[in-house]
Amino acid sequence: MGRDALVFYSSVDSAEEWRQALANELPDLDFRLDPEVGDPSEVHYVLAWTPPDGFFSRFPNLKLVTNLGAGVDRLVNRDDLVPVHFSRLNDPGMVAMMTSYVVFAVTRYARDMHVFERAKRRGEWEYVHPRPLADIKVGVLGLGELGAPAAAMLAQMGYAVSGWSRSSKAIPGVRSLTGREGLETILSESEILVSLIPLTRQSHGLLGAAELALMPKGAKFINASRGPVVDEVALIAALTSGAIAEATLDVFNVEPLPPGHPFWALDNVFITPHMASITVPALAARDVAESIRRVRAGRPPLHEIDPARGY
Amino acid sequence: MGRDALVFYSSVDSAEEWRQALANELPDLDFRLDPEVGDPSEVHYVLAWTPPDGFFSRFPNLKLVTNLGAGVDRLVNRDDLVPVHFSRLNDPGMVAMMTSYVVFAVTRYARDMHVFERAKRRGEWEYVHPRPLADIKVGVLGLGELGAPAAAMLAQMGYAVSGWSRSSKAIPGVRSLTGREGLETILSESEILVSLIPLTRQSHGLLGAAELALMPKGAKFINASRGPVVDEVALIAALTSGAIAEATLDVFNVEPLPPGHPFWALDNVFITPHMASITVPALAARDVAESIRRVRAGRPPLHEIDPARGY
Ligand SMILES: NC(=O)c1ccc[n+]([C@@H]2O[C@H](COP(=O)([O-])OP(=O)(O)OC[C@H]3O[C@@H](n4cnc5c(N)ncnc54)[C@H](OP(=O)(O)O)[C@@H]3O)[C@@H](O)[C@H]2O)c1
Ligand SMILES: NC(=O)c1ccc[n+]([C@@H]2O[C@H](COP(=O)([O-])OP(=O)(O)OC[C@H]3O[C@@H](n4cnc5c(N)ncnc54)[C@H](OP(=O)(O)O)[C@@H]3O)[C@@H](O)[C@H]2O)c1
Repeated sequence: MGRDALVFYSSVDSAEEWRQALANELPDLDFRLDPEVGDPSEVHYVLAWTPPDGFFSRFPNLKLVTNLGAGVDRLVNRDDLVPVHFSRLNDPGMVAMMTSYVVFAVTRYARDMHVFERAKRRGEWEYVHPRPLADIKVGVLGLGELGAPAAAMLAQMGYAVSGWSRSSKAIPGVRSLTGREGLETILSESEILVSLIPLTRQSHGLLGAAELALMPKGAKFINASRGPVVDEVALIAALTSGAIAEATLDVFNVEPLPPGHPFWALDNVFITPHMASITVPALAARDVAESIRRVRAGRPPLHEIDPARGY
Repeated sequence: MGRDALVFYSSVDSAEEWRQALANELPDLDFRLDPEVGDPSEVHYVLAWTPPDGFFSRFPNLKLVTNLGAGVDRLVNRDDLVPVHFSRLNDPGMVAMMTSYVVFAVTRYARDMHVFERAKRRGEWEYVHPRPLADIKVGVLGLGELGAPAAAMLAQMGYAVSGWSRSSKAIPGVRSLTGREGLETILSESEILVSLIPLTRQSHGLLGAAELALMPKGAKFINASRGPVVDEVALIAALTSGAIAEATLDVFNVEPLPPGHPFWALDNVFITPHMASITVPALAARDVAESIRRVRAGRPPLHEIDPARGY
């Protein structure tokens, strides 16, 4: 049998951490760092973040491409994909991080913390009587590997949670909605709306002026998935008029958000620098290794994605 | 059999809401609003918040006093108590609210949200690389009816949680510490420390300059129980020097926190107006009614407190 090699490519991830983490899981795997790929015919796996055009076709025996991250929008629309298995990262640490982000952002609004932040800056004790969490309607767009656990945790905390996805779901405490009608329902009912929808051809501009106008007056919007899911111009208009009262944004059309962008000047926008969730190689390597074992055995990998579907 | 009456006393709670909520649970209970108490010998129960001196001894057949709130520090040190059952409020809504407060305040620091708040005000994209939640040590002082569920939720979210209480506890995912040695351990190890300890003679000034000095440099402190549990002067000194980096305070020696108090000027202090948790009569009445049923049957009430112990 020939060598069984993986090629790593990323300008943002630590190759050394990944080499070490995968060596612990799969000592027999030959880890190669682009451009030192050796004999290309020995490369069966690629672990990469935005590799250059034509990268995949360099490896004639490629079986699996794993995206170094959860969001695959930069991968699926390439026109140089080859017909192999595609998967993305996920691990319990990443789920916990995204859940913590969502729980924080929702609770900040649900418990009026944004009001107290401003009162603190003015040096004023401003009492707002708390509302029972069960009275607060929270909507989650996207109930996937990250959205479903976040929605479940919000429900467990006591919020009234609805979720929207392509297929219907059975998540304890979470009302499942689907389709255009479901979208209009969740938009018109949610006091706090969270986007965990991946960016695809279908979801690009999903929340435009018409959709944002369906939200209850004074609603709060949280985007932890991808900027272009919402029309930024329409969002800025709604935040300026107060139709949408507050937003927490981790993702933007252009990142880092450029200095002078209108979001910076809006006091009702909380900006975080695309940090809602990251993968820790030591935690994520287990599933990457398990996917390699499965593909070796002729089975599909974990966390498989469908480029045609877009996620 | 004579009338079975409850007397309600509070200058801050809604008697009407309580009357309605209790009528739903115990239609036969005679709800009386002080000073319209009728025949004092018919009064078997008191539901009150800081009633005037000598209040309890007006009712010769009193069996149960229920404190209109979770914290009983204003009740237990009175010298006009009578030898009856004492209980305090609790309900799932109150637990959910306190847990949401604690989860918010801990996560704000754990996910560097306080850094991003300041960066937003400066109009700057300041990236801080996230740390896995499992690496973040959180300590909870007090594992009672509110502390235990909050600690359990933090553990479920993925934090490394230790808790401190008088008696040792078995809470999934929470290391249990007790005694002075346990206090010194939790203080010296916790990056984020939460007080949910009731104010008693023993806990008054529990966190003085010496105890705060045990905390890791740059630690964060959250107080959601009672102000005097911590020495405010020592806390201000630690927050000014940076020995303690950040604090979230819901409770104070004097409330509302007076204008011009040093806490207002400290940018590293987040102030909330004693709203971490409240009771909703409609939710809390069930246990109040059940306590009355139990006391009628000669059994102890729910959420019983021991005035001698102080909580
Ligand atoms: N900000 C950050 O730091 C960060 C970190 C990680 C990930 N993310 C973003 O979070 C996104 C979600 O992650 P994930 O792991 O939960 O994704 P996922 O597992 O692929 O789940 C996607 C969910 O969205 C639903 N969905 C997709 N297209 C839809 C459409 N057109 N209409 C209705 N529902 C649709 C899917 O429905 P079905 O279940 O019915 O298929 C699924 O529930 C990622 O795509 C990424 O962009 C952001
Ligand atoms: N900010 C707000 O809005 C708000 C709202 C509600 C309540 N509170 C405050 O929160 C406090 C806690 O509420 P709770 O319902 O959890 O109280 P609780 O049920 O009485 O529990 C108190 C906990 O503290 C521990 N404890 C008490 N004295 C101690 C000592 N000297 N040394 C070590 N541990 C000690 C107890 O240990 P054992 O379990 O071993 O007895 C118990 O775990 C209340 O007293 C109140 O002051 C604040």
